Amino acid sequence: MPVHKIAIIVGSLREGSINRKIARSICALKDDNLDCSIVEIGDLPLFNQDLEQNPPEQWVRFKEKIAAVDGILFCTPEYNRGMPGVLKNAIDVGSRPYGRSVWDRKPAAIVSASPGTIGGALANHQVRQSCVFLNMPVMQQPEAYLGHVNDESFDENGKLKEGPLLGLVEKLAHAFAEWVTTIHEARAHLERTARG
Amino acid sequence: MPVHKIAIIVGSLREGSINRKIARSICALKDDNLDCSIVEIGDLPLFNQDLEQNPPEQWVRFKEKIAAVDGILFCTPEYNRGMPGVLKNAIDVGSRPYGRSVWDRKPAAIVSASPGTIGGALANHQVRQSCVFLNMPVMQQPEAYLGHVNDESFDENGKLKEGPLLGLVEKLAHAFAEWVTTIHEARAHLERTARG
Amino acid sequence: MPVHKIAIIVGSLREGSINRKIARSICALKDDNLDCSIVEIGDLPLFNQDLEQNPPEQWVRFKEKIAAVDGILFCTPEYNRGMPGVLKNAIDVGSRPYGRSVWDRKPAAIVSASPGTIGGALANHQVRQSCVFLNMPVMQQPEAYLGHVNDESFDENGKLKEGPLLGLVEKLAHAFAEWVTTIHEARAHLERTARG
Amino acid sequence: MPVHKIAIIVGSLREGSINRKIARSICALKDDNLDCSIVEIGDLPLFNQDLEQNPPEQWVRFKEKIAAVDGILFCTPEYNRGMPGVLKNAIDVGSRPYGRSVWDRKPAAIVSASPGTIGGALANHQVRQSCVFLNMPVMQQPEAYLGHVNDESFDENGKLKEGPLLGLVEKLAHAFAEWVTTIHEARAHLERTARG
Repeated sequence: MPVHKIAIIVGSLREGSINRKIARSICALKDDNLDCSIVEIGDLPLFNQDLEQNPPEQWVRFKEKIAAVDGILFCTPEYNRGMPGVLKNAIDVGSRPYGRSVWDRKPAAIVSASPGTIGGALANHQVRQSCVFLNMPVMQQPEAYLGHVNDESFDENGKLKEGPLLGLVEKLAHAFAEWVTTIHEARAHLERTARG
Repeated sequence: MPVHKIAIIVGSLREGSINRKIARSICALKDDNLDCSIVEIGDLPLFNQDLEQNPPEQWVRFKEKIAAVDGILFCTPEYNRGMPGVLKNAIDVGSRPYGRSVWDRKPAAIVSASPGTIGGALANHQVRQSCVFLNMPVMQQPEAYLGHVNDESFDENGKLKEGPLLGLVEKLAHAFAEWVTTIHEARAHLERTARG
Repeated sequence: MPVHKIAIIVGSLREGSINRKIARSICALKDDNLDCSIVEIGDLPLFNQDLEQNPPEQWVRFKEKIAAVDGILFCTPEYNRGMPGVLKNAIDVGSRPYGRSVWDRKPAAIVSASPGTIGGALANHQVRQSCVFLNMPVMQQPEAYLGHVNDESFDENGKLKEGPLLGLVEKLAHAFAEWVTTIHEARAHLERTARG
Repeated sequence: MPVHKIAIIVGSLREGSINRKIARSICALKDDNLDCSIVEIGDLPLFNQDLEQNPPEQWVRFKEKIAAVDGILFCTPEYNRGMPGVLKNAIDVGSRPYGRSVWDRKPAAIVSASPGTIGGALANHQVRQSCVFLNMPVMQQPEAYLGHVNDESFDENGKLKEGPLLGLVEKLAHAFAEWVTTIHEARAHLERTARG
């Protein structure tokens, strides 16, 4: 399998965010065909269509970074039974202007983590709902609603400790590498077929 | 019925937003027991829990305005099959710190409008989903998924023209006035009963 | 507070269902102003609009039972990240024909329970989504996404053992009694006011 | 492209259902690599886990039919802001027993149609939500929320009349054929690669 460049978007701006730590743990995995890095969203001005003619430079830079990758991994908490506004704002910024979305056709996967029991399931599915409109083929399995995650889940370097949670994240990363390959290989194959 | 002070939150920052125009049309209605005004959300810094100890003054002012009203009316477009990030950010800002949410117990209603056919139905229900956690009793009927709304729907003052759409909005405003009264009267009654 | 007659609808037909056991535990609570009983849904023929002219007797009996109560409590598992078909079928049957729904204006609360971690959160919110159209005022708090529930959670009589789960269910039942009172009292008050 | 065998599942049992008519119109399309037929769900007993040891023959036959196809197309109305119970029951029946789901890995597409304005958008996304758990890769675009569909939309043979609605359905069928090919070709390619 080829190595895929992946942007990880973290739905929380808090420095000590557990979702940020999970994102860093995924970046540190060695055995998958993924080259992951976190793309920051905390400096993006709130989306306002009136600014599209003369967009803020933060929007432009963000869209360039997303345009350059082969796939997207969202790591998000749940705020008020939904996706955080900060994450949805990044999605909205990247999706515009109409017809020039940088999300289009990028394969995606979604991880949600929370200290509580439901593991961000409702936020997770709101991200999926947006991916329909954005035309992002989303990996269905394994799902990752990571409940009961807290500071104790990480070692002193902020990486996931050995255990079932790390196992699940490794499995997910491996499946995602395969999913990104599936989508890109299939498109290449279809294009070759179409050219005859 | 007493007059209720209502904050209208508009989910779009665009100056010419159709949801903003609908919000203004509701503010201009004369025959309901509602005193409505738009509370702006475009200047709210993105929510970041690390800022809670020393919150931005825009957060503080916004929360004071929400705390002062008797009910909330959301008027929102749908972005990417969900609530706009800008609206969710306002919800997130108002909900924190934990235990000091300004949304708690405020009766709410939700209007979604779009130029397309589905009338923001998916955004509308995402707002409802947050209202569960926020403990906001939401008016169920009439629902307002306003499709096919565009600049032609408004007169030269930016208010809804006479017609079925204005009729629906008037009916909704009237039902909301009754809903806010229902909730507040019922609580007063229960407190009197509890005091014996 | 007056005593309210409540129909509990269980989303699983399995005899040993944990949601059925939770429903029975709620029926057995002594200290609330609720008179609860389970209304069965397992014999309802699948909804088919063509049968409305000459409805199956099971539909008729079910609708009579629902029409006779003061409020509805749903206890449901999550199947395939949604509400079980058996529960949605009962909702569909009760909602028809158009204009003669037996759910209209009934206050409701929703409990979801599962052996897994997310506690039926996605099923729980699908029931809420239907309640909007059905015009059922739903209690928002406390939410009840009961995860990690299994046969060990119940005693030899199939009732919840003493512990935090029973405590949460008691708190929910108490809050629901207050919610049903709130809605019914408020309507009575508004009608007296309207009559002058 | 190879010809793919597709099961269409119709979410309404009404003989004159507009979703059934759309399903028939898709079956009658000539220019796509799809061999579609409707698989009926109206005779399926309500799912009950206690019956799994000795399943009703209707369940067995339904599961055999689904197991034999290359992809699934759902055509569904929206009932009470959600998927019809009859459709969810079919999904639940096909998904069990755990580990022997017949839906697993089948590519899927979702059409929702209604006489009203929102075109079944909320039902459409509930089907998508189940497809995550069922591990069915769902086509994201084009979405098909078909509003304002009624008996006038069809000719005397019950097929879609020439017009934009037929155009959209043809486009969707063509995209679905490509999606099914994408998924199956990519899996074949990955297996060849794995075998070396």
